[in-house]
Amino acid sequence: MLKGKVVGTIVSTNKFDSLRGYKFLEIQLKEKDELTDRYIIAVDRSISAGIGEEVLVVTGSSARAAVGDINAPVDAVVAGIIDKLQF
Amino acid sequence: MLKGKVVGTIVSTNKFDSLRGYKFLEIQLKEKDELTDRYIIAVDRSISAGIGEEVLVVTGSSARAAVGDINAPVDAVVAGIIDKLQF
Amino acid sequence: MLKGKVVGTIVSTNKFDSLRGYKFLEIQLKEKDELTDRYIIAVDRSISAGIGEEVLVVTGSSARAAVGDINAPVDAVVAGIIDKLQF
Amino acid sequence: MLKGKVVGTIVSTNKFDSLRGYKFLEIQLKEKDELTDRYIIAVDRSISAGIGEEVLVVTGSSARAAVGDINAPVDAVVAGIIDKLQF
Amino acid sequence: MLKGKVVGTIVSTNKFDSLRGYKFLEIQLKEKDELTDRYIIAVDRSISAGIGEEVLVVTGSSARAAVGDINAPVDAVVAGIIDKLQF
Repeated sequence: MLKGKVVGTIVSTNKFDSLRGYKFLEIQLKEKDELTDRYIIAVDRSISAGIGEEVLVVTGSSARAAVGDINAPVDAVVAGIIDKLQF
Repeated sequence: MLKGKVVGTIVSTNKFDSLRGYKFLEIQLKEKDELTDRYIIAVDRSISAGIGEEVLVVTGSSARAAVGDINAPVDAVVAGIIDKLQF
Repeated sequence: MLKGKVVGTIVSTNKFDSLRGYKFLEIQLKEKDELTDRYIIAVDRSISAGIGEEVLVVTGSSARAAVGDINAPVDAVVAGIIDKLQF
Repeated sequence: MLKGKVVGTIVSTNKFDSLRGYKFLEIQLKEKDELTDRYIIAVDRSISAGIGEEVLVVTGSSARAAVGDINAPVDAVVAGIIDKLQF
Repeated sequence: MLKGKVVGTIVSTNKFDSLRGYKFLEIQLKEKDELTDRYIIAVDRSISAGIGEEVLVVTGSSARAAVGDINAPVDAVVAGIIDKLQF
């Protein structure tokens, strides 16, 4: 999984019908304590992450498993909000 | 998902029969507000994105799910046009 | 597979129900003898790797195979502890 | 999909039996008009691309779909020859 | 597929039961004629590649297809020994 900070919401009117109702978040990836200059766009179905929150992102075909629809056209999904990194 | 700007159309005569009728767009990837020097080629089946438009791209096996044909030989598909990034 | 050093545990309260009981480790990736500045978050289901240990990580859809649940929303799993690299 | 220029053919005698008869091309990846210093090895089953030609490459599990054998041990396949990039 | 030079064998005692008997090789990736500073760990089931040999590596879900066990928790497999690159 990847982790990152939510920086915004993608607004898209003309998209696949199968994506109607999905919320797309742009997420700035983080390596341990450092924000990088790489981003990923992930679907948030049930976590309701807000701007600035740190989230866990599941990618690839596992993202389809994560939304519970093996035919969903998504490749990255927000799987949880990260409270902290414990040592 | 990834996002990027459509920069051109790939013309290919000698290709898999199963790819006949597919439109291939070359897309310059974007990290938040910055265009990068990385590109991806994605199929556009139903969105009809034009040159210069910003699009959402689904990759990997989820791209096959996105075109509704689990046997389609494609690994990246245009899933929508991005209107804006909201904060 | 990738290898890396366990650097911490991710604490997440608000996450998918299907991830309850999973332990998430943050792992610093290693290229041969060199630690990199890239990290991955992997599930540890049965290996019980501790902070500082070097582990083997399986990624992608193979991670779901690794936890024995093809619907598990995970894309990286700790598959073993590395004792040494033999030449 | 990726695109690149065919730079050579990989010769391998000791390989999986299931790969007998496959032609392996080494391909220098191209980002729009620029050749990069990254390469990928892709199977050419039916396109018969020659050295110097620019090709379209399908990767991941979609490559298995592309060769029409879901059990083929390949992760990149030449899907077509690129004639030009149209603006 | 990727190619690279075998640089060592990973020794792991505490690992998934399903990985018992698998040989794990650390492989230094090569771009055409240049060794990189990137490495991957791949399973060698039947090729018996030795230290210093150049090998072809299949990655992702295709690696599971390559070992003939769609549930094998592996994401990279040695598929052949490279004799040479022909122009």
